[in-house]
Amino acid sequence: MVSTFPNSYSVDLSRVRLSIRTLQPQLVEWRRRLHQEPELGFQEKLTAEFVSGKLQAWGIEHQTGVAKTGIVATIKGTKCSTEKVLAIRADMDALPIQELNEVPYKSQHDGVMHACGHDGHTAIALGTAYYLQQHREDFAGTVKIIFQPAEEGPGGAKPMIEAGVLQNPDVDAIIGLHLWNNLPLGTVGVRAGALMAAVELFNCTVLGKGGHGAIPHQTVDSIVVAAQIVNALQTIVARNVNPIDSAVVTVGALHAGTAHNVIADTANMKGTVRYFNPAFAGFFQQRIEQIIAGICQSHGAKYNLEYTSLYPPVINDARIAELVRSIAEEVVETPVGIVPECQTMGGEDMSFFLQEVPGCYFFLGSANPEKDLAYPHHHPRFDFDETVLPMGVEIFIRCMEKFFR
Amino acid sequence: MVSTFPNSYSVDLSRVRLSIRTLQPQLVEWRRRLHQEPELGFQEKLTAEFVSGKLQAWGIEHQTGVAKTGIVATIKGTKCSTEKVLAIRADMDALPIQELNEVPYKSQHDGVMHACGHDGHTAIALGTAYYLQQHREDFAGTVKIIFQPAEEGPGGAKPMIEAGVLQNPDVDAIIGLHLWNNLPLGTVGVRAGALMAAVELFNCTVLGKGGHGAIPHQTVDSIVVAAQIVNALQTIVARNVNPIDSAVVTVGALHAGTAHNVIADTANMKGTVRYFNPAFAGFFQQRIEQIIAGICQSHGAKYNLEYTSLYPPVINDARIAELVRSIAEEVVETPVGIVPECQTMGGEDMSFFLQEVPGCYFFLGSANPEKDLAYPHHHPRFDFDETVLPMGVEIFIRCMEKFFR
Amino acid sequence: MVSTFPNSYSVDLSRVRLSIRTLQPQLVEWRRRLHQEPELGFQEKLTAEFVSGKLQAWGIEHQTGVAKTGIVATIKGTKCSTEKVLAIRADMDALPIQELNEVPYKSQHDGVMHACGHDGHTAIALGTAYYLQQHREDFAGTVKIIFQPAEEGPGGAKPMIEAGVLQNPDVDAIIGLHLWNNLPLGTVGVRAGALMAAVELFNCTVLGKGGHGAIPHQTVDSIVVAAQIVNALQTIVARNVNPIDSAVVTVGALHAGTAHNVIADTANMKGTVRYFNPAFAGFFQQRIEQIIAGICQSHGAKYNLEYTSLYPPVINDARIAELVRSIAEEVVETPVGIVPECQTMGGEDMSFFLQEVPGCYFFLGSANPEKDLAYPHHHPRFDFDETVLPMGVEIFIRCMEKFFR
Amino acid sequence: MVSTFPNSYSVDLSRVRLSIRTLQPQLVEWRRRLHQEPELGFQEKLTAEFVSGKLQAWGIEHQTGVAKTGIVATIKGTKCSTEKVLAIRADMDALPIQELNEVPYKSQHDGVMHACGHDGHTAIALGTAYYLQQHREDFAGTVKIIFQPAEEGPGGAKPMIEAGVLQNPDVDAIIGLHLWNNLPLGTVGVRAGALMAAVELFNCTVLGKGGHGAIPHQTVDSIVVAAQIVNALQTIVARNVNPIDSAVVTVGALHAGTAHNVIADTANMKGTVRYFNPAFAGFFQQRIEQIIAGICQSHGAKYNLEYTSLYPPVINDARIAELVRSIAEEVVETPVGIVPECQTMGGEDMSFFLQEVPGCYFFLGSANPEKDLAYPHHHPRFDFDETVLPMGVEIFIRCMEKFFR
Repeated sequence: MVSTFPNSYSVDLSRVRLSIRTLQPQLVEWRRRLHQEPELGFQEKLTAEFVSGKLQAWGIEHQTGVAKTGIVATIKGTKCSTEKVLAIRADMDALPIQELNEVPYKSQHDGVMHACGHDGHTAIALGTAYYLQQHREDFAGTVKIIFQPAEEGPGGAKPMIEAGVLQNPDVDAIIGLHLWNNLPLGTVGVRAGALMAAVELFNCTVLGKGGHGAIPHQTVDSIVVAAQIVNALQTIVARNVNPIDSAVVTVGALHAGTAHNVIADTANMKGTVRYFNPAFAGFFQQRIEQIIAGICQSHGAKYNLEYTSLYPPVINDARIAELVRSIAEEVVETPVGIVPECQTMGGEDMSFFLQEVPGCYFFLGSANPEKDLAYPHHHPRFDFDETVLPMGVEIFIRCMEKFFR
Repeated sequence: MVSTFPNSYSVDLSRVRLSIRTLQPQLVEWRRRLHQEPELGFQEKLTAEFVSGKLQAWGIEHQTGVAKTGIVATIKGTKCSTEKVLAIRADMDALPIQELNEVPYKSQHDGVMHACGHDGHTAIALGTAYYLQQHREDFAGTVKIIFQPAEEGPGGAKPMIEAGVLQNPDVDAIIGLHLWNNLPLGTVGVRAGALMAAVELFNCTVLGKGGHGAIPHQTVDSIVVAAQIVNALQTIVARNVNPIDSAVVTVGALHAGTAHNVIADTANMKGTVRYFNPAFAGFFQQRIEQIIAGICQSHGAKYNLEYTSLYPPVINDARIAELVRSIAEEVVETPVGIVPECQTMGGEDMSFFLQEVPGCYFFLGSANPEKDLAYPHHHPRFDFDETVLPMGVEIFIRCMEKFFR
Repeated sequence: MVSTFPNSYSVDLSRVRLSIRTLQPQLVEWRRRLHQEPELGFQEKLTAEFVSGKLQAWGIEHQTGVAKTGIVATIKGTKCSTEKVLAIRADMDALPIQELNEVPYKSQHDGVMHACGHDGHTAIALGTAYYLQQHREDFAGTVKIIFQPAEEGPGGAKPMIEAGVLQNPDVDAIIGLHLWNNLPLGTVGVRAGALMAAVELFNCTVLGKGGHGAIPHQTVDSIVVAAQIVNALQTIVARNVNPIDSAVVTVGALHAGTAHNVIADTANMKGTVRYFNPAFAGFFQQRIEQIIAGICQSHGAKYNLEYTSLYPPVINDARIAELVRSIAEEVVETPVGIVPECQTMGGEDMSFFLQEVPGCYFFLGSANPEKDLAYPHHHPRFDFDETVLPMGVEIFIRCMEKFFR
Repeated sequence: MVSTFPNSYSVDLSRVRLSIRTLQPQLVEWRRRLHQEPELGFQEKLTAEFVSGKLQAWGIEHQTGVAKTGIVATIKGTKCSTEKVLAIRADMDALPIQELNEVPYKSQHDGVMHACGHDGHTAIALGTAYYLQQHREDFAGTVKIIFQPAEEGPGGAKPMIEAGVLQNPDVDAIIGLHLWNNLPLGTVGVRAGALMAAVELFNCTVLGKGGHGAIPHQTVDSIVVAAQIVNALQTIVARNVNPIDSAVVTVGALHAGTAHNVIADTANMKGTVRYFNPAFAGFFQQRIEQIIAGICQSHGAKYNLEYTSLYPPVINDARIAELVRSIAEEVVETPVGIVPECQTMGGEDMSFFLQEVPGCYFFLGSANPEKDLAYPHHHPRFDFDETVLPMGVEIFIRCMEKFFR
């Protein structure tokens, strides 16, 4: 991540073609409309109606109700005959957060907010669809635009894949972007390989034996056992992971006991695991259970462990990532505008698409401290600089053009 | 504590004098009346009225409202002139427990219950007062009977001492008993030195720095710090306490964090400390704070620590303990009826009286499994075998007689 | 143990009978002769020759070469006919320590020293034998005097028992003493029940997998595993032992690795366990192995564990302990001269005799700071105040007289 | 690092120019001569004489005795006038290892061995010097060839820099290579940024208080303190380092105590720290001392800590790394021959040169399992496939040619 932001945020849109630059008012209008009516995962009813209405109006063939609330639009270029298919993915869901921004387009749904920029992603995808539909004669190949539900969890990518969105016609590559307030407006974060981390969750209850705080020998003190587990878990990252790889094991919550003088019979720990290297699939679950089992056995305790592998890591294909990088070089100010050090231990279910077909997910810098638009994602004051919207469309279109050549 | 109970529970009351044995119906009546109207510490209004009413009826001089709800009765023997003063102490308060026994004398106060036998203690003290008043001509010396509030906490002994109950006339020695379901009916647990433990409490909050579970390097993980503190606290008993002494350090509750993927900014630990040796006063507080401070410093955390020394250990005077033991030998079946291995890490504020004057606190076995009267203290089904009540009066009277000789 | 020593060390020997008091020069001569020629366990050749020579000269029937170098002398009183047999036990071996005292009777054997007072024990036993032989007509019953080898390890008591020293005639009770520099000269430490601790040893090697210090993920770091074992072992005393009991688990040595940058493949831990309560036999071995096994399993390590139960606790019979105590009250200054708080977590193989027959082991205070005779046992400057020697004989003789009555 | 090696090891030298290919016999001869006479750091007397003798014979201007045993040769191209200066660095020292290979050129110095390939590095540098001197008319610019002592420690790079080898004329860029048995013969490991890790060492002694194993309360148990420190050190990598960065903290040796039953007064720990990110300079020393200080304070122990920052990380300049990569693409089989995933947590004092001038250090794959030439570096059977030697010269020459263009 960049540690210092540039002094000036006047993004240079001169490299965005005029026909896209003139979409800016519509992009903003759509984004604000979506921002006002945010919906949680798999509940994107109004959102899907809005998207579908636009596609319908523009005469774009599309399928609704994919994986409950998802939409897939298909636009076929007519320039010449090619079998190539490129998918563009956008996510549509919002978060269970009460917006604190005082803006005209503030969320009208209590306790729900587009605090991660998915409203922008959907607007950019709509703009891209509109442009493509207008310029079918200029390109060869087929573009599928995937409007996905529930990225924030429990995940809409996997059910969309299972519903066949990558088939008929078969998708050759997929791209997607995340508006990113960790990068300054007018920059692109892109790299081959791991961009975002796998996300796994665990929930472990140590089952000891309670009793009076003054007679420990008649108990199995679950707090003592849990403390030793917390300690031993530190050794996974410190000793069992190749230092050149990246991983996190966090115990985020630990709850045991009620009173000063009563030994707690059970202790509950909740935690998360993150890593980039797909070779680690299954590894952390095995090590965490091995540690818990061994230490419980040391003290005569038992345990319950639930372990969930939520999302795999977001792994960009080297070739498609290079394509995106080369396009970004044309569109943004170089060299400072390209940020290869953009890895984050955050997760994304774009990873499921990238497991199926080569592709590239990238960050489009959207922070503008000069306008107080630099709050982190998931913050109740999160917002981004809308100037960036046509730049997103331009990058998608140029990637498509280059991919089909 | 005894691990095996005798087969038969027919207590032999033949060594209890007839005039006390005949008090049995009254003792039971008083105890059941008190059992039906249990009151929490410093709220013993009905209890005090009942006690005072009886003393009044019997013509016994007494003072009410001592340390809020306490009562001190003074009975002076007329046999011959002696300056000796013996105090007998009974506690009157009940516990915030909902009684589950289905007995005619079940608690009529919702959520409050005599689950520790203080109703019996008060009845025995009343019986002792009645007998003494009837037999003033048979003894020399003065007996003070102290009816104390709030033994279960926050403690009525200390304020009664501060109110002067051990003065005017000055008390030379004090005795008291606890009906004890850990001992079989008809046995006495008595020993010189430590009988019950000091009770101290701590409440510590580790102040770390929260953050996203995937970016631990920007946080101070309070759960990791707390786990190391729990581990290090184990070394106090294991390494810093003379193995020949007895001590307990228990963390009874540990609470930190709310979510899998958010590093907890604070972690709260609550615990208790127990020990017999009065030389440990201040030691555990110093060691616990030293450990917490050092480990917090190791990790850049801060902390809040509240430490409360609730009750000192119950230390019996060797001479008075020998007096009680010798009396017990006369009254209970020997040798099995005398249990010197009766130490418990539980606490009692009788300890404050024993810090001021020599004395002896002892256990009077009250469990009778044959009648299903063997639930542990503080259990919602706790009850004791009332047969034991006159035995308590007899022991008090004989101790008094021997002490004044 | 006493924390403050008395101001004056002029022991009052007026209660030692004249015929024993006059033995003092011989007792000192014998003790110094033995001190000059110290011998390690099972190598007590000169010592045994000296003892046997004296017994021979005095016409006392005895057997040599019992359990290699042990001696059993038997002296039968002729006063009247009784079948009672009392054994008196003394140990004869020295320690592998280079004496640093500059005294005329300094050890003449390089690297070997009577640094624990066994020379005094043997001298007292010889004095007792001499007195008994001279006064056979004054007592009824049989006294066996057991001169035992190798108390400091590997233990001579057990093989002597196996050799039948407690039989033919069968011993009814056994007594023994330890000169004790932890107590002031002229005091006796005696108590019923546990006086000294069981001694167990363990030797554990964690078998990890070594490797370069910069590639921990290809290793199993035995130091990390050992550290967690050391931590977890603390919980045995802190959580698994009744606080009213006494126990110690010490890791005395931990050795692993050779270089800064090489992960150690193995880590060796050596330790000792102590406890009083015979019910703990087997318990610590089980808990220690459970902890080691569980933690090794947590980290994919293996282990070797050797566990040796060296000596059981020294448990005095209540009746014989009371006999010794009552005699001590006659011989030493009371009440300060009797020290019931004399338990020590040190060990002694006198325990094996006490497992077989009722008996009492006691401490005879031998420290005299005024003469610089207060170094702890096993110190290269250890020495004791020889004034105490006839007091030891007197106590043995009086115990015998009372036991046979 | 690559996990699977190719099936065939017939390196294709067709892209090495003939005039370098014909140097092969000399390269092998020089390398074997050096291999037979290995010398430890700062003792490279014969080695320096051999190098200097060759340079002298070839008429190459050079300076000897730089930083004790180092040599700097300067060769100036005559093609046309340019001020550019490129340095090529080779290390000359061997290791204190007894060679176990049975080869004609086996080490003739007992206990010293070229087990890391520095003999090959020196031979390649000599070959490069020879070629350059023969072809001065073909290039413009100046090449400095630095023959460095003591890379294996304590480090010769720093004193050579202090002796001015990068000045007069000032060096514009520096390159160097390591023959690398972790890569298959005929491959090049090169990347921009961190290639090898910083190396730091620590040596910590916990100062507790010894005593008898049965009286822990009179001691400060240094083994318990050290175990807690080992545990807490794990949290540095697990919690304090950005997961996207790489770091290792290893305790390689832990030594404390001598006997089962004596509590160790001191415990010594030796360890190493590795990391890539130069921003971590000073960080680990601060965290390690903070942890040690806090935990020692927790237990009333003191400590001594020696901390040495041996080598900084090897950081390749992006531009020079790209130059080397592009040359490697010309010389080795692509794409499999270029290995960007070649980072290692090992250290190298080439880092000091790279702190001063932009440059690139790279790995030249030298393992050939078919010829049993694949033992790891520092192994007593280490050897490499000499076929690689002219490839090293070719890469250096091409880099020079491209750099001066």
